[in-house]
Amino acid sequence: MSKIGLIAGRGKLPAIWAASARDRGHDVYAFPIIEEADEGLKNIAKVIKPVNVGAFDNLINILIENDISKVVMIGKVNKTRLFGKTRLDARMQQMLANLRELNDDSILLGIVNELKKEGIEVLKQSTFIEDLFPTPGPVTSKTPDDSLLEDMKYAFKLARGIGGLDIGQTVLVKNRAVLAVEAIEGTDQAIKRAGELGGAGATMAKVSKPNQDFRFDIPTVGLTTLRNLIKIKARGLVIEAGKTFIVDREEFIETAEASGITVMALESASPE
Amino acid sequence: MSKIGLIAGRGKLPAIWAASARDRGHDVYAFPIIEEADEGLKNIAKVIKPVNVGAFDNLINILIENDISKVVMIGKVNKTRLFGKTRLDARMQQMLANLRELNDDSILLGIVNELKKEGIEVLKQSTFIEDLFPTPGPVTSKTPDDSLLEDMKYAFKLARGIGGLDIGQTVLVKNRAVLAVEAIEGTDQAIKRAGELGGAGATMAKVSKPNQDFRFDIPTVGLTTLRNLIKIKARGLVIEAGKTFIVDREEFIETAEASGITVMALESASPE
Repeated sequence: MSKIGLIAGRGKLPAIWAASARDRGHDVYAFPIIEEADEGLKNIAKVIKPVNVGAFDNLINILIENDISKVVMIGKVNKTRLFGKTRLDARMQQMLANLRELNDDSILLGIVNELKKEGIEVLKQSTFIEDLFPTPGPVTSKTPDDSLLEDMKYAFKLARGIGGLDIGQTVLVKNRAVLAVEAIEGTDQAIKRAGELGGAGATMAKVSKPNQDFRFDIPTVGLTTLRNLIKIKARGLVIEAGKTFIVDREEFIETAEASGITVMALESASPE
Repeated sequence: MSKIGLIAGRGKLPAIWAASARDRGHDVYAFPIIEEADEGLKNIAKVIKPVNVGAFDNLINILIENDISKVVMIGKVNKTRLFGKTRLDARMQQMLANLRELNDDSILLGIVNELKKEGIEVLKQSTFIEDLFPTPGPVTSKTPDDSLLEDMKYAFKLARGIGGLDIGQTVLVKNRAVLAVEAIEGTDQAIKRAGELGGAGATMAKVSKPNQDFRFDIPTVGLTTLRNLIKIKARGLVIEAGKTFIVDREEFIETAEASGITVMALESASPE
């Protein structure tokens, strides 16, 4: 039995994570920084204490007072919260001022490092939920035929390459032609473009980057992505075994099967 | 003085190439397979003999009869010519039937190999026009400032990486964020998307692929690309020294300078 802090953002992952940690005998101290996060954590966390995203010093003090030396940061937090009307305390301001860039990864890494200075370790988001990640092989009951499997492997290889260049994590192909590579436009737009350019039959890959920091970023697929794939009549989705999280897994698989989309998890050939 | 065959497609490159070959003392035997190509070659080629794109055996016979053992294939030929109403002779049909894939590169490589069987060598498109390729350094009179140069180097590196994955040759960035990676949609659409996503100030890179076959494909930039970049208020364009061809170079540089776009040629760090 140990105390684990949960700094919770938007989405279903914080509650899923909290339940899994509790089931393994840990006391979850939840710090929702998004109003909605609060709801899902009720009856799961031992302690819930909403905090303001700008009140960094306050959060650190609470962690120290409660003798919490391990935390997980999980769930989306829109950056506009930091740069909108939110009042940032001196500690947060200073931390941001010292960053070379203000992209999401830099800011989150800044937070991780600031916590480390106080002896607080940020665990990988996958901690306690490893068994929720797909294992290698078909995720849907239908297995891909040879031609689909070939597109899946090709898309997977390219997505790994794109990730290595730190461009993005998503690629869509059809018959070994690259329909779309995701950059700043986001997954939804990349899927839409692939449909417009290639018609029905696309296969999408979503994978982790070689330098993916699982402390604040896990690649996920969920119903939104799937519905976009259904719209363009995609035939396949390939994700990375052990590294891509399927949100709402049961409904996800049901929906994929109902619409004839085959989902497969592949393992990276190269160790990281 | 030697005879060189020129299998000419659409665009200005065939005539540019023919003039340069002639100025170096070669006799150019031009075989326009596109009606328009004919025009530009007048008064430059020693012999002009239009041929049908599907009459492959006929072309080979003419080359042999005229004792031409070296040819250049240059200018665009739309694939629909091959798969449209054009009658393909037995030799072309057989060659196509033996190909694993029917993408542009496969077809052109098939033609190169078929010619090789007859002792006819296809030269690199860059032969005789090497001095028209940009040397490393600024192409426009304005040199990039530090921030633009950083984006140029970043875009260049990513474009090289994308090329290595055989995805495409064009990437657009802004402040080290990747706005667009070109896949099947083509350069014009990638530029447009970058403008919509990132506003003014983008930098584009266009480079060769590591496995680029210069016998039938040279990366080019021209006025169309430039005008699209002007539309999105781009600030920079970086191309590959010695490997990216600028069509209509004088007008290109004039237009770039008039619109404040800095053009730079960089050298690949890694030898190929």
